[in-house]
Formats: sequence, C-alpha cells, structure tokens
Amino acid sequence: MNTNWSKTVAERLSSVRTKHPLVHNITNFVVMNSSANILLAQGAFPVMAHAINEVEDMVALANALVLNIGTLTDEWVEAMVVAGKKANELGIPIILDPVGAGATPLRTRKSKEILNNVKIGVLRGNASEINALVDAEGKTRGVDAVHSVDDVLEIAVQLAKKRDLIVAISGKEDLVTNGERAFRISNGVPMMTMVTGTGCGLSSTVGAFIGTGDDSLEATVAAFAFYGIAGEKALQKSPGPGSFNAAFMDALYTIDDEDLTAVKIREAVTDE
Amino acid sequence: MNTNWSKTVAERLSSVRTKHPLVHNITNFVVMNSSANILLAQGAFPVMAHAINEVEDMVALANALVLNIGTLTDEWVEAMVVAGKKANELGIPIILDPVGAGATPLRTRKSKEILNNVKIGVLRGNASEINALVDAEGKTRGVDAVHSVDDVLEIAVQLAKKRDLIVAISGKEDLVTNGERAFRISNGVPMMTMVTGTGCGLSSTVGAFIGTGDDSLEATVAAFAFYGIAGEKALQKSPGPGSFNAAFMDALYTIDDEDLTAVKIREAVTDE
Amino acid sequence: MNTNWSKTVAERLSSVRTKHPLVHNITNFVVMNSSANILLAQGAFPVMAHAINEVEDMVALANALVLNIGTLTDEWVEAMVVAGKKANELGIPIILDPVGAGATPLRTRKSKEILNNVKIGVLRGNASEINALVDAEGKTRGVDAVHSVDDVLEIAVQLAKKRDLIVAISGKEDLVTNGERAFRISNGVPMMTMVTGTGCGLSSTVGAFIGTGDDSLEATVAAFAFYGIAGEKALQKSPGPGSFNAAFMDALYTIDDEDLTAVKIREAVTDE
Repeated sequence: MNTNWSKTVAERLSSVRTKHPLVHNITNFVVMNSSANILLAQGAFPVMAHAINEVEDMVALANALVLNIGTLTDEWVEAMVVAGKKANELGIPIILDPVGAGATPLRTRKSKEILNNVKIGVLRGNASEINALVDAEGKTRGVDAVHSVDDVLEIAVQLAKKRDLIVAISGKEDLVTNGERAFRISNGVPMMTMVTGTGCGLSSTVGAFIGTGDDSLEATVAAFAFYGIAGEKALQKSPGPGSFNAAFMDALYTIDDEDLTAVKIREAVTDE
Repeated sequence: MNTNWSKTVAERLSSVRTKHPLVHNITNFVVMNSSANILLAQGAFPVMAHAINEVEDMVALANALVLNIGTLTDEWVEAMVVAGKKANELGIPIILDPVGAGATPLRTRKSKEILNNVKIGVLRGNASEINALVDAEGKTRGVDAVHSVDDVLEIAVQLAKKRDLIVAISGKEDLVTNGERAFRISNGVPMMTMVTGTGCGLSSTVGAFIGTGDDSLEATVAAFAFYGIAGEKALQKSPGPGSFNAAFMDALYTIDDEDLTAVKIREAVTDE
Repeated sequence: MNTNWSKTVAERLSSVRTKHPLVHNITNFVVMNSSANILLAQGAFPVMAHAINEVEDMVALANALVLNIGTLTDEWVEAMVVAGKKANELGIPIILDPVGAGATPLRTRKSKEILNNVKIGVLRGNASEINALVDAEGKTRGVDAVHSVDDVLEIAVQLAKKRDLIVAISGKEDLVTNGERAFRISNGVPMMTMVTGTGCGLSSTVGAFIGTGDDSLEATVAAFAFYGIAGEKALQKSPGPGSFNAAFMDALYTIDDEDLTAVKIREAVTDE
C-alpha cells in the first residue's frame, strides 16, 4: 500500500473526478438531497432508487451501492437486500451505513439481517453503531463505554475479520480496518456534526472512491481523509452550520492537491 | 411566569444548548432535512423514524415528539398515533403541526383523528389551519376571514380550553395561548415565508424547548421569540432566500443573550 | 407570438410574482425541498401531496400539476395517474418529468403509462429521457447518439405532434417545441448540473409559468430562459456548487427586467 497518503488521496480523488462513478443509494429521506449534492460536488453521479421492482436493474448500472437504514421500514430493507444480492452477483461493491443500530431493536436486527444476507464491502458507522453489531458472543461494550477509537479498535478488527469486510468508524478520530491493517484518520472538524447528513454523505463518498478503484482499504481511508479535509477547508469561512454546509459543498468541489497535503493518517497497531 | 422575557428566552435557549434534547420527528418529506438542521443548529438532537414497528421504541428515547402531517398518508398517521400513545404513556410532550388542515378533507380529518386519539401538548399551525380544527359546534370562521391574531384570538382560547392544550399560531404576529393566558410575539421577518420548512422547523423548535423544561406555555413563547429573532438576524446579510436560509441556520447557532434583547412579546387580553 | 423575448419573459415572471400560482408537485424525495424553495423564490406557492385519497382534492386547488418519477414506485405512479385524470377533468395543465426514462425498464414503462392515461401539457426531460419515450415505431436513437438539440430536434417534433403536447428538452442548449414551432434556448451554465434537483426544479418552474397564462409554448420557453439566466447570475459569485445553490435561489428571487435582457432564444427550423 502506498504510504504517501497525500499523493494517494489525490490520485483517488482525481479518479472520481474523471471517471464519474455512478453511486446507487438506497438511503434515508433526511439525506437524499445532501448525499446527492455531496456526490455531485466531488465528481460522482448519484442515483436514488428504492422500488423493489427496479433496484436490480438500477444497481446493474452502478459502480457502487450504498445502503443506509436511517428512515428504514421493512419494505425498504427488503429492497436493500434484493439490490445487495444483485450487486454481489455482479461484483459491485456495497457500503452499509447502519444508522442508529443499537438505538432501537429494529435497527440492530435489520442491520444484521442485511449483513447476513448480503456480502458487504464496507460497514461505515459511528462507534456505538458498530459496537451494536458485534454479535453477542463477541465483546460488545455498553454504549456509554464507547468514546474513542481505542475503545473500539479491538472490536472493529474482530468484526472485520469475522465478516470479511472493512469496518470504517467515524468520530473525533476515524478508524478504518480490514482486520489485517488499521488506519487512524484525524482530519475533519466538529462543525461537521452540526449539519445533518455528513455521516451519510461520507458513506456515499466511500462508495464513489471504492467505485473507481480496486484497493478498497486504501480507497476507504482516502475517502475519509478527503472528506475531513473538505470540512477543515469549509470551516475557515463559516460562522455557523448554514454557511458551513454551503462551504463544505464548495470545498468538495474545489479541493486540490495542495489542500490534500493536510492528510492526517497513521497506521494503528492492532493486537494481531 | 417570568416576564423578563429576554432573560427567560436566554435561559430556555441555554437549556437546549446544554441538555441537547432528543426530538423525535414524524414529519413530512419536504422538511426532514431542514428540520434536522434547524434542531442541530440550536443544540438539539433530531431523530426521524416512522416505521410503525419502531416508533414506540424510538419515542421512548426522546424528550419530545413532533407530529407533522405535511405529506401524510393513512399509514404515516397510523404510526403517528402509535408513537403518540406511547409518548402519552411515558409523559413525553407532543407537538402537532396540522399542515394544510382545512385545505383538503383528508388533512382536516386526520388532524382531528390525531387530536382525538393522542393527548397533544402544543398545536402549532397558521391561523387558517387552527381555524379548520375548531369543531363544527365552535365558531369556525371562513378561511378568507382569518388574517390576524385578532381574528383568531377567541377561537384559539376556546380550542386551547376545550382540548386542554397550548395553541400556537404563526403569522405576521404570533399568538400562543393555553386558554388561560395568551401572548403575542412580533419577532420574525417576512423572508421566513420564502423558505420552505420554516413553519415546520418552528414546530420542531418548540419540541426542543419544551423537551428541556417544565413550563410549556413559557417554553413555547420562548421558542417563538428565539426563532423570530434568528430570522431578523439572518435577514441583515441576505439578498434573497438562498443566502437567508444559510444565514438563518447560522443565526440559530450564534444567537447570544444580547441578540435576545430584541424579544417582542406582550400579553394579550382575552375575553375571560 | 411575441418575439421580443426579454419583454415576454419579464411579463411572464411578473405574472408568477403577482398571481402566486399554486403548483401541486407529486415528485421525488431527493428534490422535494429544493423544488419547493425554487417555487417560493420565484413567487409561486408549492404544495407536495401524494396520498391517493387526497390528490384529487389537492390538485383541484392548484394552477398546475407537476409529475416527477425520480423515486417512483408503483403506488406513487398510481397516485400520479389519479391526480392527472382529475387535473385533465378540471383543465389544469400538467407537466411530466420522466426522470431516468431509458435507464431502467420500470421508468420507461411507467412514463409511457402516465402518457397513455393522462393528457400531459409539457413533457420536460433531458435528451436521452425524451429519446426513450419515442415509441418503437418512431425513430428512437441509441442513448450514445443523443448529445445535442440537433440530434433530437426531429424526434422531439414528431413526439410533440403525436402526443399533442409540448416537448421541452434541457441540455447545453435547450429545445422547446409544440410540433409546429420550435425554440432553442441557450441560457444557463454547466454549474447547474452540479446541484441535484435543478432539472426537477425547472419542471416545477414550467408549472408556475404555465399556471398563470394561456400560451403554454411561450410560457415554457419563458420559464427555461428565466431559469437559465438565474443560473448565469448565480454563477458570478459562486466558487462551487454549495454557494451556487444559495445564489441561485437568491437570483430566482431578485432577477429583474434588466437581467432578463440576457435571454438567448431563437426559433429553430424544423423539417416541416
């Protein structure tokens, strides 16, 4: 893996901007607009489609599939599974964003149902969501005990190995691991949490980055760093979340190689 | 009741910013994103969830429940009633925003269905919506006759008494009454009506303010004044509704005690 | 037809701003918020309602109906047809935006189903969507062959004649034809394609313009030119799509007669 991360992120971003990956999102009502705009701003093409009699045809056109349970119902999850199975069949990578897993039984159960029926490439959530998806036999921790990357590093590595996927956790510091290697990303600003949909938009961004390359671990790390740097750049001229939101879209669009020298990525030491 | 309103509003806002009330919204598709951002900007935490097999679990985590029928279907209203009954059981306050009541029979009927099956804490709408919800035996006025607080003061007081709730009416001048006392709030600017979702966002804001305190009448009046002042502050640097929308989110986030000295609240004389 | 287009567009816009047409949208989840804001900014009133037991009552209040299949399901299309038939009965003009027709079989089939069951006034899409709706017996071209107005002029004229409607195609250059006459509009900027919902918002804008006048061809051409000029005006101070989006809403609101002298409309020569 290339460890000149500035260059790697720049190359990955350039790839998104020139290849315009089509990212099929089956996502929640709150963020459909913002996720579409986030994808467009970085050079990707978004499509939102959830009808169970259409998702197979749509995903077949896509470079990545993003499943997000933010405003789930049983019917929507059913469509997600149908789309996911088709994507698996076609070798199209899938990102799962288990919004609110652990908050209600339905969200935890449906997240696991998707994980059990579809081969997920990247599981992207916050620490408490990921923690909720570790099976009972694993070392689940109480939500109150999950505050930092250090609290979930071991769990994330185990989950990545067991499910054979990449676990990507957002937080003050981010963590991305495939079970073999793990990376910490420290880009980003707290203002990002003051705008709804930034987490969901990151999942879609991972979709765009993975949809254009072949090393999913590297692509996921690159997506996280790029996204965080856009937040840092946007903050410079934003007195509040409204102007920040507009500046963030601008930053996704204008970020250049020089901006990307701000990457803060380091490899984490795992127990293995 | 504290009548130093600047101080009261400041204390209520401070309470939202420090306690971060979780506001569960079952609301319409148009405003889900904007309502979430409005809540985040003021310091509250939004959650949107409408699945009938999840709403009871979700509302149990919340400090307030906001029901908004803007893009209603029978199924969504069914979920609202289920969530509302659970909230009643748990003593969680409920705000109902009867969007478009009076415009179509479905909206009027479903609004009443919710009012008849769920104990609502605050009914927040515009004058014609509230007017539509006065039962036939009451003094309903034609929509064309409803233009100002004076036109609906009596109706609002009656409705508040009959239903034992707070009636909160937005307009050029706002009116908030619990049937015993009534307050007029004159903050806000017409530009707020040029951005979709400001009314719905006010309902959610009432949820945040009520979710952190115990005097619902005072909390509702404070929420209205805070919201209107944010509009006034945002207008100062906005040539049109797009920049106003961003500035409004910024204002909700940056408003301070000095800004809040702009409150314009006075008690209304009722017939009682 | 008035060929002093600056004056015509100004008069049409003035009509929207003074008459405040009510535009009933049955549209997709991604753009509900942006379409509502686009309508408000130009002076129209938006309403979104899709419940099958309400759409007839709602459309009866409206000056135009906009049907958009962006996140379609069978149920939503069923409601669109019910609303459309009622609008036909009442003489309320209908705009159809066949989002993604040609991309999946469902979208092509459902677009035709609407066209076959409802009398559409304006069919607004991009070149490949319109191309997909030309019946098999017509001269459908492969999607890859559809790049400019010249590629679709003949098809658009034929489709307009056959279906007795206005075909309005957005692109680098726009084309509007009723089958008898055809106009090319060259206003607009590429940045408009970097914000989701601008195409859908144009369909709603056509609804507002048609909802206030009687010459639908002229109204549609005027709506396209107005919209494109707003994009040009917004671009002047926008480093990226986030600030552009806000500036675009501002421009829709602030555009004046002088701005409208920038119209670029010319009649196209058809084969007929």
